Amino acid sequence: MSKVEIFNSAPKHGYKEKSISVDHDAFKAVIESRRSVRVYDETTIPEGVMRECLRLALLAPNSSNLQTWQFYWVRDEVKKNKLVKYCLSQPAARTASELVVAVARPDRWREINALMLAKFDEAKKVKLKAAYQYYSRIVPMAYNMGPFGIYGPFKQLYVWFRGLSKPTPRGPYSLAGMRLWAQKSTALACENFMLAIRSYGFDSCPMEGMDAKRVKDLLDLPKGASICMVISAGKRADNGVYGPRVRFDQNLFIKEI
Amino acid sequence: MSKVEIFNSAPKHGYKEKSISVDHDAFKAVIESRRSVRVYDETTIPEGVMRECLRLALLAPNSSNLQTWQFYWVRDEVKKNKLVKYCLSQPAARTASELVVAVARPDRWREINALMLAKFDEAKKVKLKAAYQYYSRIVPMAYNMGPFGIYGPFKQLYVWFRGLSKPTPRGPYSLAGMRLWAQKSTALACENFMLAIRSYGFDSCPMEGMDAKRVKDLLDLPKGASICMVISAGKRADNGVYGPRVRFDQNLFIKEI
Repeated sequence: MSKVEIFNSAPKHGYKEKSISVDHDAFKAVIESRRSVRVYDETTIPEGVMRECLRLALLAPNSSNLQTWQFYWVRDEVKKNKLVKYCLSQPAARTASELVVAVARPDRWREINALMLAKFDEAKKVKLKAAYQYYSRIVPMAYNMGPFGIYGPFKQLYVWFRGLSKPTPRGPYSLAGMRLWAQKSTALACENFMLAIRSYGFDSCPMEGMDAKRVKDLLDLPKGASICMVISAGKRADNGVYGPRVRFDQNLFIKEI
Repeated sequence: MSKVEIFNSAPKHGYKEKSISVDHDAFKAVIESRRSVRVYDETTIPEGVMRECLRLALLAPNSSNLQTWQFYWVRDEVKKNKLVKYCLSQPAARTASELVVAVARPDRWREINALMLAKFDEAKKVKLKAAYQYYSRIVPMAYNMGPFGIYGPFKQLYVWFRGLSKPTPRGPYSLAGMRLWAQKSTALACENFMLAIRSYGFDSCPMEGMDAKRVKDLLDLPKGASICMVISAGKRADNGVYGPRVRFDQNLFIKEI
C-alpha cells in the first residue's frame, strides 16, 4: 500500500476559515445552567427550535466524519406514548414536550463513505489527494469487519504484530468495537443537542434507563443499529431539578502529568 | 426488593433552580465555528483557560452521575513528545499547544458510588429517599459485573426474562458493555471541552487515530480503564482547517416519526 500522507504533513489545500471570536460568558452560561431536568411544565417547544437544535447536533465532530448517528424525533402520539412506557414512564419522559432517540449506526459506514467519495469525484480535480486515499483505502481497511465480523480477529492479530515495532491505531476489531466507535460520535452530537436546547431556554434529560430493545423495535431499526440514549426536552417545571449539582473533588477526574 | 420510586414520580425535594435565559446566537456561534483544526500556530493556551475548559467538561450530564471519566492533561515535555508519536505524529498533535487524553473509567463506578452515598449520609436527613435507594441498591445491581464479569450472563438472562412481560432497562451485561457505558458519558464531557476551548477563541481536534495501547501505558492506567480519545488544542493556523465542513442531506440523519 502506498503511503498515505494525511497523517504526516498538512496537505496544500488553499482553504481558509478564519477563527471568529465568540462570547465565552454566554457559552459558559449555557453549560453551567444545563441540568438534567426531570419534570417539565406544559410549555411546548416550537417546531423550529427543535429542528435547529437537531441541525446543531449534526455539527459535532465525529470519527472520520462518517457521521454514524441518527436522531429520531418521535412525534406521533401513539409512538410517543409507547416510548414513554419504554422509558419506564419516568417523569422526565412522561412530562416531556418532545422525545428524541439518539441512535448509533455503525452499520452505515459504507453508505456514508460512498457519499464522501462521490463528493470528491464531484469536485473533479481532487485537491486533497491524501483525503481521497483516506476514504478509498484506510476507511474500508479500518471499518470493514466482513460478514459476521470474521475479519476482526485477523485485524487484531495484524495490529498486534505491527504494534510491536511502531505506534499503531488500535481497533475496532469486532462488531461490538464498531458499536462503541459509532456510539462515541453519537454521544458528541447528543451533547450538542442538549446544550442547544438549553441555549433556547429549554431543558433536557438524557435517559439510559430505558428498554433499548423495545425502543429499537419501535423505530424499526436494523440489527446493526444501537440505541445511544433517549433525550427528553421541554420547559423545566419549578420542581424539575431534583437538587444542586453533585460533583466531587476535581483531582479525582483531572490529572496534570 | 422494595419498589424504588425514583422512576415513577417526582420526589418532594423542595429544591428550586430557576431556568436562566442565555444568548442563543452566541452559543450557536461556538458550535458553528468549531471545526477540527489540524494545524495550529505557535500561540499557547493560557493555563487558566485550560483549567476552566476542563472544569466545564466535567459539567456534562453522565450516566447515573457516576462520572466515569478522567482527563489527563499531558504537560511534561517528554511525555507529550511520546504522546505526539502515539498519535502517529499527525500535525493536529505535533503542532498543538496542549494535549489532553480523555479516559473512560468504568472500573471506578464503585468508588464514585461510595462518594455519592457518603454525600447523602453527610446530609444526615436524607430528603431524597428514592435517590438514596437508587445508589444503594439499583446502581450495584446494574453495574457490578462480578470478578471477570461472571455475573453478566446471569444478568442478561434475568433481564431477558423480565423483559418478556414488561419494559426493562437492558445491559450492561459484560465488562465490554461497562466500557461502552462509561465511554458514552466520557464523550459527552469531551464535547463540552471542545466547545469550551472554542468559546475562548481557541480550537481543538479529537483524535481516535492513535495507539490507544501505548497511550494507556504512558498514563499508567489500570486494565479496566480505556482511552476515549486524545484531544489536541491550540490556536488555528491559516491552513488549520482543511476544507469546508462536509455534511450530507439531513434526512439521512434526522427522522421525524
